[in-house]
Amino acid sequence: MTGGHCAIRGTFFDFLDDPWKHVGQEQDAARFIADGLLVVKDGRIEDFGPFTEVSARRPGLEVTHLPGRILMPGFIDGHIHFPQTRVLGAYGNQLLDWLQNSIFLEELKYNDRDYASQAAEHFFTALLAGGTTTCQAFTTSSPVSTEVFFEEAAKRNMRVISGLTGIDRFAPPEVVISPDDFYKESKRLIERYHRRGRNLYAITPRFAVGCTDAMMDRCRQLKEEHPDCWINTHISENPSEIRTAREHYPDCPDYTSVHEKHGLLGPKFTAGHGVWLSGDEMRRFSKAGAAISFCPLSNLFLGSGLFRLGRAKDPDHPVRLSVGSDMGGGNAFSLVRVLEEAYKVGMCNNTMLDGSVNPREQDLAEAERNKLSPYRAFYLATLGGANSLYLDDILGNFEPGKEADFVALDWNAGQAAMAWHQSLAVGDGGPETMEQAAKLLFGIMAVGDDRNVDETWVAGRRLYKKAAG
Amino acid sequence: MTGGHCAIRGTFFDFLDDPWKHVGQEQDAARFIADGLLVVKDGRIEDFGPFTEVSARRPGLEVTHLPGRILMPGFIDGHIHFPQTRVLGAYGNQLLDWLQNSIFLEELKYNDRDYASQAAEHFFTALLAGGTTTCQAFTTSSPVSTEVFFEEAAKRNMRVISGLTGIDRFAPPEVVISPDDFYKESKRLIERYHRRGRNLYAITPRFAVGCTDAMMDRCRQLKEEHPDCWINTHISENPSEIRTAREHYPDCPDYTSVHEKHGLLGPKFTAGHGVWLSGDEMRRFSKAGAAISFCPLSNLFLGSGLFRLGRAKDPDHPVRLSVGSDMGGGNAFSLVRVLEEAYKVGMCNNTMLDGSVNPREQDLAEAERNKLSPYRAFYLATLGGANSLYLDDILGNFEPGKEADFVALDWNAGQAAMAWHQSLAVGDGGPETMEQAAKLLFGIMAVGDDRNVDETWVAGRRLYKKAAG
Repeated sequence: MTGGHCAIRGTFFDFLDDPWKHVGQEQDAARFIADGLLVVKDGRIEDFGPFTEVSARRPGLEVTHLPGRILMPGFIDGHIHFPQTRVLGAYGNQLLDWLQNSIFLEELKYNDRDYASQAAEHFFTALLAGGTTTCQAFTTSSPVSTEVFFEEAAKRNMRVISGLTGIDRFAPPEVVISPDDFYKESKRLIERYHRRGRNLYAITPRFAVGCTDAMMDRCRQLKEEHPDCWINTHISENPSEIRTAREHYPDCPDYTSVHEKHGLLGPKFTAGHGVWLSGDEMRRFSKAGAAISFCPLSNLFLGSGLFRLGRAKDPDHPVRLSVGSDMGGGNAFSLVRVLEEAYKVGMCNNTMLDGSVNPREQDLAEAERNKLSPYRAFYLATLGGANSLYLDDILGNFEPGKEADFVALDWNAGQAAMAWHQSLAVGDGGPETMEQAAKLLFGIMAVGDDRNVDETWVAGRRLYKKAAG
Repeated sequence: MTGGHCAIRGTFFDFLDDPWKHVGQEQDAARFIADGLLVVKDGRIEDFGPFTEVSARRPGLEVTHLPGRILMPGFIDGHIHFPQTRVLGAYGNQLLDWLQNSIFLEELKYNDRDYASQAAEHFFTALLAGGTTTCQAFTTSSPVSTEVFFEEAAKRNMRVISGLTGIDRFAPPEVVISPDDFYKESKRLIERYHRRGRNLYAITPRFAVGCTDAMMDRCRQLKEEHPDCWINTHISENPSEIRTAREHYPDCPDYTSVHEKHGLLGPKFTAGHGVWLSGDEMRRFSKAGAAISFCPLSNLFLGSGLFRLGRAKDPDHPVRLSVGSDMGGGNAFSLVRVLEEAYKVGMCNNTMLDGSVNPREQDLAEAERNKLSPYRAFYLATLGGANSLYLDDILGNFEPGKEADFVALDWNAGQAAMAWHQSLAVGDGGPETMEQAAKLLFGIMAVGDDRNVDETWVAGRRLYKKAAG
């Protein structure tokens, strides 16, 4: 599919472990090779290590050199909405009104294959321009949008997770799908797309407010019949949404129990947001091996609230976490921008937990876990995301055998202030130590954006190169 | 200084009033001319209106046409730190630690005229690339940095407010300045720079934690001796800072009373942040004619908290407001990015006030005032900022007689997703109605950044043009 051998030389940075497990010595979770060589064969990593070592044992390979860049595993977006591509950043509402006023009617357009195809072109182009090589995406309740999504991803040979997005209430009649039709169409789409090429299928109940008991039961049935499939949904995003969900599920004492009741909470289950999850719900997520996708751009843009990152990373009950753009509730495709906002949410939590506002809420350990260092941040965007999605056997770092998706980051690009800022961390020659590289990476997430993504490679092929300018 | 006549044709958008005074009909506060002409003589606006009318009464002028752009008054940044240019977006700390660990030592470098001059080049270049034509800036406690700042601004003929930044405690010995030296140097700098060209002087006590009673008294004396000068400071940014300030001023029941006690709160007084001001303090700001600069990028980046925008805009006690980047606490120069974050802060407040979290805190009118429409947002960045700084007699909109600072916004620039997004609002021809233009402006603040600033003009001269790419 990708053909033959290639080798990329450059400065590499990736992760072998979770930096939150190494408080005070986060470097132990990372790997830095100032001059490395990545050998790719048929889209997978065949060899990786210092240039001198790998080139000695792999003579005769044509080497592509990418100097002046930091090469990282491709970014993984755990939560994004394909059919909101055009309406990202819509004005004026919290979640429930925003769905009704700005989103559902746009999503309806994706019943049209031509419109959906045009959108898919924009969507994947924007993803790659942001350095994202893998995403877990919502589509619509129309099978057309799911088909177009998988087909466009396959053209680019990208590793994606998606599925028909079920909603059978709380939407205009043209947008809803009956539980029976959802079941039938989901089966057909699983058959057609799951594990074809790099496509993976997620059974996708949109969210409890939009899904009846019957819809959730169909999801359980699908999972029982296709245990290899993923499950993707939303949880506890906005206070009004949570109240509505609880009215719909009066027998469930909290939002998480809706998913427990229907047998969905477990491995390969991801719920976006979780802003208002209680400590007890997080512990149940942790025990079940279920994941949350933290979507700070969206949580701020829709005013949903501040996700309690430090609580989710409680070492006794850690929850698997990815970061998600949640585009279009999130107002950018770029995971660099997502990490920036994640840092800010963490710092706001840090202040609320240091005791200065309310001594009763002081928790200095949790406060510290909210600080999103460059190690923690880029872990979430790469290996951490892969781990949360149960893809870390095939993605997330440069271990041989894994799929060769990566980005080349230009630490000097972006707003006019960037290059002089970064010159505090390194001179002209680029980073020589992991610490220097981490400083540059923090500069990218704090001061940068999609402009810092210079190239994006998928399965050993370069699919994106930033225009000069 | 700029010489002769020029005329600019294009699509213009500006404000004649405060949109918060026109809830439900914000258009009444704005002005939109789809095809307009701006005539500039000697850096000031000589005539303005529809192209057909103005060109008829001004024959023979050479016209510069800027099609496909929205022309707005230049952005006004009410709160920014010149000597933090290189360290914007520094990792890991809330305000007080951030100052000690990342800021003071960098500011010390500005004692060196060469370093300060290099910094000034970066600073003003970045400002203009963000569309900012006027700022109120902090310098350092060394007169060198203030001199360099004013001289570089004068070279570009920019309208700026700044002044020697006084701090006599809570900083390394090399950073502090004695109240007597501060007084003496401030006098000298006022004499040398105030109202020379477009330079304006602000008496600048850094913040109460860093200023003794003696320093604050010197500031009062300076204001009494130079009543035409501005006053620029910080207030109530971070909970720990507020506690420290209250320990330093045990006779002051709140932070605002520190400034009242020293006779500083009044017209032409601006305090940055005000995140934690009580309702009573805001009312005293309102009565005094004092202003707050709302710095959401910084308030999120340093985790300071969510400024209560809707409370500050209480129609019974409205506080004069500018927006500020607070670069380097804020992690970008771009006021477009500032407006994006301001929108997010407003939406988070909106949720907290709608009764869904805590019915006791429900205040639907205040909740509504937190929604930052494009009218409200760009008002803050232009005429509102001018009003808060008592510059609205000379800046802030396109009224004849005012200074001709403006930006040309390209609504399609920015991240890959932008152009298709904006095509929802208008076709190829550009906006024909105010409502279409406002939608494009919201698209810019929600999805855009400094890339949307295509040109920046100061006193009728183009000082910035974005590179193609």
